[in-house]
Amino acid sequence: MSQRSDIWLDGSPTATLPLPDRGSDFGDGVFETILVHQGALLFADVHLERLSLGLQVLAIPDCIAAARQQLDIVAIAIHWRWAVLRLSVSRGSGQRGYTPSDNAVPRILISVSPLDRDCEKMMTAATLCFANIRLATQPFLAGIKHLNRLEQVLASAQAKAEGVDEAIVLDQNGHIISVIAGNLFLVRQGKLLTPKLDNCGVLGTRRRLVIERWAPAIGLTVRETTLTLLDLQEAEEVFYSNSLQTVRPIARIGQQSWNSHGVCEAIFQRYQETLI
Amino acid sequence: MSQRSDIWLDGSPTATLPLPDRGSDFGDGVFETILVHQGALLFADVHLERLSLGLQVLAIPDCIAAARQQLDIVAIAIHWRWAVLRLSVSRGSGQRGYTPSDNAVPRILISVSPLDRDCEKMMTAATLCFANIRLATQPFLAGIKHLNRLEQVLASAQAKAEGVDEAIVLDQNGHIISVIAGNLFLVRQGKLLTPKLDNCGVLGTRRRLVIERWAPAIGLTVRETTLTLLDLQEAEEVFYSNSLQTVRPIARIGQQSWNSHGVCEAIFQRYQETLI
Repeated sequence: MSQRSDIWLDGSPTATLPLPDRGSDFGDGVFETILVHQGALLFADVHLERLSLGLQVLAIPDCIAAARQQLDIVAIAIHWRWAVLRLSVSRGSGQRGYTPSDNAVPRILISVSPLDRDCEKMMTAATLCFANIRLATQPFLAGIKHLNRLEQVLASAQAKAEGVDEAIVLDQNGHIISVIAGNLFLVRQGKLLTPKLDNCGVLGTRRRLVIERWAPAIGLTVRETTLTLLDLQEAEEVFYSNSLQTVRPIARIGQQSWNSHGVCEAIFQRYQETLI
Repeated sequence: MSQRSDIWLDGSPTATLPLPDRGSDFGDGVFETILVHQGALLFADVHLERLSLGLQVLAIPDCIAAARQQLDIVAIAIHWRWAVLRLSVSRGSGQRGYTPSDNAVPRILISVSPLDRDCEKMMTAATLCFANIRLATQPFLAGIKHLNRLEQVLASAQAKAEGVDEAIVLDQNGHIISVIAGNLFLVRQGKLLTPKLDNCGVLGTRRRLVIERWAPAIGLTVRETTLTLLDLQEAEEVFYSNSLQTVRPIARIGQQSWNSHGVCEAIFQRYQETLI
């Protein structure tokens, strides 16, 4: 691939999206951000399971088999050592107005860009601020990775303006939910805690892998619970997870800082073993 | 125009959207739905003022002058007696990820479809259900007509499934906010009430016209307030407003019905006078 980003629509290379498209009109769809290592899509099954959940919640026709087929086509064309693949599914075209048509034909859009970074190395500890915007309470959509992402866009603009790597986002009650593009973990008295995501937030693929595989592998269990700013203050270690950075230690959030990153390092080692 | 829907991008006819586009990726943009009568865009200034507010809230560069210019180009090509024009502004293309680029160039997308209905006649009284999904509390985005519209999509699917014209949507506290695609008005003891929209909902153009022009013209003032289901039960008349139906009387919501539509009719008459 010669370009810096290549795009496929329903399995064929493209530079444009046919209009109308309900993804473009209403954010009516879901997406995944998949890390690609030497042409291999890391944890593709975990991504496709979440995608499937999102399609069910939005009542978009199941197109997982087609998505899997198209991912295979695209994967062959990726020659970068590390790349990031975005897979979006929109409800396709449709009549004017909000009402979905009964015979919606989903569109599958895949775009790939190279990653300069070597994802075999854990990133340096991150500096964070607190996002001014709080996540909206919406139990109907909580957990899925849908295309309505204005909250993340606004929080990211703030993090960039403040010159930090990421931001902690709270819900409307002031509880801690996540970072902008990832999930949050706290270590307290040797226990691993992460926010419950019943009312907002995204059920991250790496969050799931930490809970189900990597934390148990180092002898820890993860408790999903309500977390407050007080819990953050009392944490001995803090890190976040997402599909591109896997787990990244946090050095500072606002005025508070951490030097200890042992649990994050141990989990990153578990991840590295999956690359062999 | 020969097709049933024609589309322009940045002033030129198109059938496709260049990728990537942040509207398509994240719903990163705003839109307006404008009623067109014999080539005239009704209340275009009111629409463009709300669009401008939305651009400010999202920190998308001001492109109102360009939008106005493109609307003029498109309006000339509309030969249907009644049409609906959708004007969308996205933040344009951009780097991978949520963070907006500093030099974003907004894209202006205009699509036009014919309306079969004669908008000089008030629509028959509507039947409504209550939407299962409640609107999320998000004061940062309340009022503007952004592209994150999954709540409206899901509520519209329910209304269609239940065979009703529209649905009442509540907020997370159970307060009445609006209908799916429009604002709600209650008549009680000769007074006109409409929900406050500080935490969710869209500041409709016709809502504004009812409040600022049409209600005063028939000797009524509108109070923006918190409204509960009890207020709805005690209402003597109920109607909703939006850009395509202007004001539409409500005959039934769930188990409750109304026969009196006098205020709605009087307001519709005021609207009709603007068409002359």
